[in-house]
This record gives sequence, C-alpha cells and structure tokens, in this order.
Amino acid sequence: MFGFEIIARDRKARAGTLTTPHGTVATPSFVAVGTHAAVQALSSEDLLMMGTQVIIANTYHLHLNPGEGLIKKMGGLHAFMGWPGPVVTDSGGFQIFSLGIGKEQGVGKIASIFPAPPENSSDGSGKRKSMVSVDEEGITFTSHCDGTPRRFTPEGVIHIQRRLGADIILTLDECTSPYHDYDYTRQSMERTHRWAVRGLEEFRRDDSRHQALWGVVQGGAYRDLREESAVFMKQQGFDGYAVGGSLGKTKDQMIQVVGWKTQSLPEQAPRHLLGIGEVEDMFAAVEAGIDLFDCVAPTLLARTGTVYVGKSKRFRIHIRNARFRDDQKPIEETCGCYTCSRYSRAYLRHLFMAREPFGIRLATLHNVYFMESLFRLIRTAIKEGRLERLKKEWLSVSH
Amino acid sequence: MFGFEIIARDRKARAGTLTTPHGTVATPSFVAVGTHAAVQALSSEDLLMMGTQVIIANTYHLHLNPGEGLIKKMGGLHAFMGWPGPVVTDSGGFQIFSLGIGKEQGVGKIASIFPAPPENSSDGSGKRKSMVSVDEEGITFTSHCDGTPRRFTPEGVIHIQRRLGADIILTLDECTSPYHDYDYTRQSMERTHRWAVRGLEEFRRDDSRHQALWGVVQGGAYRDLREESAVFMKQQGFDGYAVGGSLGKTKDQMIQVVGWKTQSLPEQAPRHLLGIGEVEDMFAAVEAGIDLFDCVAPTLLARTGTVYVGKSKRFRIHIRNARFRDDQKPIEETCGCYTCSRYSRAYLRHLFMAREPFGIRLATLHNVYFMESLFRLIRTAIKEGRLERLKKEWLSVSH
Repeated sequence: MFGFEIIARDRKARAGTLTTPHGTVATPSFVAVGTHAAVQALSSEDLLMMGTQVIIANTYHLHLNPGEGLIKKMGGLHAFMGWPGPVVTDSGGFQIFSLGIGKEQGVGKIASIFPAPPENSSDGSGKRKSMVSVDEEGITFTSHCDGTPRRFTPEGVIHIQRRLGADIILTLDECTSPYHDYDYTRQSMERTHRWAVRGLEEFRRDDSRHQALWGVVQGGAYRDLREESAVFMKQQGFDGYAVGGSLGKTKDQMIQVVGWKTQSLPEQAPRHLLGIGEVEDMFAAVEAGIDLFDCVAPTLLARTGTVYVGKSKRFRIHIRNARFRDDQKPIEETCGCYTCSRYSRAYLRHLFMAREPFGIRLATLHNVYFMESLFRLIRTAIKEGRLERLKKEWLSVSH
Repeated sequence: MFGFEIIARDRKARAGTLTTPHGTVATPSFVAVGTHAAVQALSSEDLLMMGTQVIIANTYHLHLNPGEGLIKKMGGLHAFMGWPGPVVTDSGGFQIFSLGIGKEQGVGKIASIFPAPPENSSDGSGKRKSMVSVDEEGITFTSHCDGTPRRFTPEGVIHIQRRLGADIILTLDECTSPYHDYDYTRQSMERTHRWAVRGLEEFRRDDSRHQALWGVVQGGAYRDLREESAVFMKQQGFDGYAVGGSLGKTKDQMIQVVGWKTQSLPEQAPRHLLGIGEVEDMFAAVEAGIDLFDCVAPTLLARTGTVYVGKSKRFRIHIRNARFRDDQKPIEETCGCYTCSRYSRAYLRHLFMAREPFGIRLATLHNVYFMESLFRLIRTAIKEGRLERLKKEWLSVSH
C-alpha cells in the first residue's frame, strides 16, 4: 500500500513516486495546508483541478476541534473533508512549540524572521508567558481554544492520528528554537529520539498498513546533532522522514542545515521538509534531496491580496497597490489558473478594496496553482537534468 | 433586445420570460445580490451551476469604489466581473436612505425589523446624525468610504448607470421611512415622480436600446399614494417597474402595500420588489403579481452559518448549534446543491467553529441554491395552477 520509487535524479535532487492507500504523489511536491481539514475556501474539486496531490492537516488543532473521536465517527479525515487523495497529519510538535518557547522568544523556524527575542512580555521577564511544559513522558500544554490543560505523549499522538485516519502520520517531537543553546538542543533531541522509539513501538503494536509512520528529525542548527538525529532516525527504519525544528538563524544557514540532514537519511525513503515554502528555499531544499514541502504562505498571503508572480521581486505583488487600479492584465499573463484566465488585476484589486471574500478565493486559487505549477516545472527539470538552469532562471529575475 | 412575455397565470401570479441583451430570465426569479460586482465568494460558474439567472449590483457602492469610469474602461460590469448574464443596477436611492433617515431613525424597509426609533444618538436629539440632505435637484450625501461630499441627481444616476453598463437600470428615488408622516411621504413621492420624468428624459436623449430604464414606485404605506405613484409611473411608459421604499410597519401591511401597487401597474411590464427576500414574503408578493426579487439574506446569513431548510422554523437552522456536532446528514437531505451532495452538517459546523472561510462558501452555495430551487418550484406551480397549494405546503411546516 505504501511505497516510494525514485524515477530520476539530478545531482542530489530526486523525482519520484510516493504511493499511499489514497493514491500516488509525484515528487518533489507541494503539500497543501489544510490545518482544520479545509484548505481556505477551496473544495477538493478546486484542488484537484489545480493539480494538488496531497494535503497536510493538523493533529493539534483537530484534536482540540472537533476532536479525533468525532472525525473517526464521521469516517475519518478523508470522508469528513471530502478529499479523495493522500493526507498527512503532523504530530502537533510545531504547534506546541508555537505556544511555548516560540511564544516566549517570539521566534519561528528561522530566527531571521523575528531577528531577536522580543522586549515586550506579560510578566516583565522579557519573555512572553509559555503555555507549555515538557517532561520525559510528554508535553503538557494549555488549549488555546478553551484554556483547558492537555497532554500529548508519544503514544497518545499515535492514537489520535490513528483515529484521524491520515495516510501518513508523524512521531511526536519537541521543536527547539534558534535561540536554544547546544546543551538544551542536544537534551531535547535525545528526548525526541526516545519519543520516536516509543511512538514506533506503539504504532507497530497495531499496524494494519493503512497508515505509514514517519519520524521527525531534530537537532537544531548544530551539524553534529542534525547528523546524529538523521542517523538515529534512519536506524529505526521509518517509512519516511520529516525534517522539523529550528533551521538556524538565517536562510543561508537553513539551506546548510537541510543539506546536513538529508546526507544521513536513507536514500530510498521520502523526505518532507516541514513548514518551509519560500520559492528560493524550496529550490535549495529540492537540490539537497527533499521530496515534500508544506507551507501556509500561499493561502495566508492570499488573505491579504499578496499573489505570486514568477518574474517579480520576492515572487509576489500586492494586488491592493494603487498601480493595479486600472490594470487590465491578469495577475500573470503566462499563468493558466482559473483566476488568470478570467479576471483582471483591476477587478481583483477592487474586490480586496471592497473587502469582498471572492477576492480571497481568487487570490488563493492563483497562489496554490502557482506552487503546483512550480513543482511541475521542478519535476520535469529533474527528469531532464536541468534543475540548476531552472533555478537560475527563476532566481535571477527575482532579485 | 428587451421584452417581457407572460406565459402562464395563476390568479394574479404570473410566470414569464424577461428578455435582455445578455439573455433571458424565467420569472418569477430571485436576483442574486452582487453589491460590489461580486456575489460573496461565488464565481459566475458557481452561480450558473445553481441556476442563477440575473445579478443586481449597486450604483451607490460602485460609484464610490472603484468608480463608474474605471468599470467603463474595463469593458463594463459584465466584462469586469465576468458574468455573462443579465445585470440590474439600482439607482442608489435605498443606500442613501440607509445613510440618511434610515440611520436617523434606525429603521429598514419594514419598521417591525426595528420596532421603534432608537433612543441612542450622537447629538442627544434622539436621532443619529444623517449624512444626507435632499432638495428638488437631487441628493447630497457624504461618502461612507472617505467622507467626501457627493451628489446624485436624476440625470447623474442615468450617466453613472450608462457607464456601469447593466442591462436594466433604475430611476433615482427618495426612499421614505415607515415613520415618515403622510405629508412628507406625499411631498417626497411627488419629487420622486419629477425625478423619474427627468431621468427618463435624460435616458431617451441617447437610448441605444442596450439598456432598459425601469421606474421606481414610491408612496410609503399609504394606499392612495401607492396607487397614485403606480398610476403616474405607468403613464410614463417605463420598460419595467421596481417597487421601493417603505412597505409599512408590519409584514401583513407590507403584503397589503405590495398588492395596492401591483394593481395599478401595467399588466404587461415586469415588476421587481426591491430588497425583499423572506420566503413567506416572496410567496405573498408572487401572488400579488411580482416577478423579480433581490435580497441580501441568502449571502448575509451564510456568513454566520445560518442556512435555509425548507421544513424548519423560519426556514433556517444555525449550523453552529451544538446539536449538529456529530450530524452526518447534509443540511437538507432532499437538496441537490453542491454542499448537500458532498458534506455533512458536522463538517460544516466544524468549519464555522474553526472560522474556516470554506464554511461560508459552502453555506452560501446552499442558500443561493435554495432560493433558486424555490423559484423553480414557484414557476412550475404557476404553470400548473397550484401556487396556493405550494405556498400552503411550505408555510404550514415552518410555523
């Protein structure tokens, strides 16, 4: 039911086919983010029309609302959300990171997005209050929805994800921050390894091969830890590997970190880089041998009228900008998406200025299509041995 | 290019065909509300799929944003919004009413929605401050967008609507409130009549038959005024008639007022009841001989998760209600809409609880389909001479 076949290589980059009980995914591929079992205002038909192959939903959020029990009762995630293709659920580690140390330090996966820990805090300590505590057995956190205390354990998240019913599920990990020091990062990584073993044992206790369990590699931005983590995870023999956690303080460091990790991971298993989706980052990660990417950016940016354009600075334009007021062209003249084949920039701008929700829908359709198209180009380029040329074409015009 | 043919009658109700340069409309029909040249998050394909025949856009709003000049430059409303079918624009009279006396008195078209003038006000006079003043020549108002002073004249709104390019356009009217007395209502009605004549003269100066001008009947809830207004408008020989303004203080009175008006309007012209869209009201108005209805309710209610159900109190349920938490049924088991054929109430409720915009889209698709289906049933019932039975079936279960 599960498999991963590499069908072409271009240096370290690979084009492959990931097989799941709900269909195959041509890789490298973008994974559409459906946090609450919905991809913004897009239906399954919309996604299929654009070439979306796989969706990632969120264990933390779905556990809180509507709960894995309800989703199981409704026939599992695929039936609940009406999506016929492959689904991934993450373990919730990153969301808990966001509530905990990420909140305290005000950082994301790459520190440069928030260059320094924030000064403002609720308790005067220079830190925002964490809603999370980590111990050997698991993670205790406060629900951001209703303030109730909750607990995730390595075994518990396997049970939750069994009930959610995704094709690919992840082990529980602790996500560290770019500001965590070497000692804490090592300590945390080793705990994440013990959790991975416990998760795998729990998973194997009742493995019907309807789901595949992937291990999450940690180790922060420290080379020896990253390599150690990749080697450890590889030894466990997971079906696939996700690369999570801190990726350093700058984009350059991130690319280096991704390179270290993939080196030590097994060649024949699929690799998912969690939560990264900037065009230049994805090119670099594909070159390092990453197969899957998920990022909320295409849908999140669409909410404010930021739309992707291949030949533009940072690959995006803000459609609310006054210069688009009477622009009769589509977002991108070469784009084949629903929005670009029907509507002008002027109309899209008008919709955003008038706060019409149809604007968000049209921008989302374009942005998701943009990502899917980019990965179609990347897959073809790998097969034709010209990934580097494609990358240069793309990056040269955007800077 | 324009025409209206009555093909069946059931007492005073009529089933007909309205012909416009952008296609025909089987009447009685619902007119989807696209205030800012967009129907919430629905595309033209979505609307056509559900059987929507005609859209009404808003002269007041489109004049302010993005402006009729831009829309003309973009090829007119049809091209701008990508809608191939008939479009109506209203004259802006009702929106100015909302900013003026409607705001002062806190009332809508039927006073019972706001049972009494509000106590709270900004200037201590017991009234909210009006942003509007009416004189013989036209209406001066303050833009709700940028606070600039604007002026609508009977000739000016013809020019604006020429540039917007809808198929059917309306004369400028002053909308009165259910709390206006007889004398003011008469004075206002007579001014609206003079404006209608001026609008018609301006329209005929350059009539290429690409647009049809309809007159707006006023006169409040006073029988002699309503009849006088209908007779006056009829004498002007408009292509069609819209019934606007105050419709009394209760729903029963509204139904009576609509009856008075339609009696004196020409039998062979189409009649549009502006801004009314509750199921029971539409049945009553169809029985009085109304052909077209527009109402923001289906899309507005969808935003908060209120969805139409034929066999339910007030024809609606609130999908956020806890009793739908694990309800595997669609909104309506007999409904053929996109939403009902794919998704459970439980999923829809989950989307609203998680504030996912896909919920609004699914609810809107259902509500618009509900209205279009109801009018399909109404048209068939008229042709088969059983409108009264259909009405009884519908109203008996909802009370």
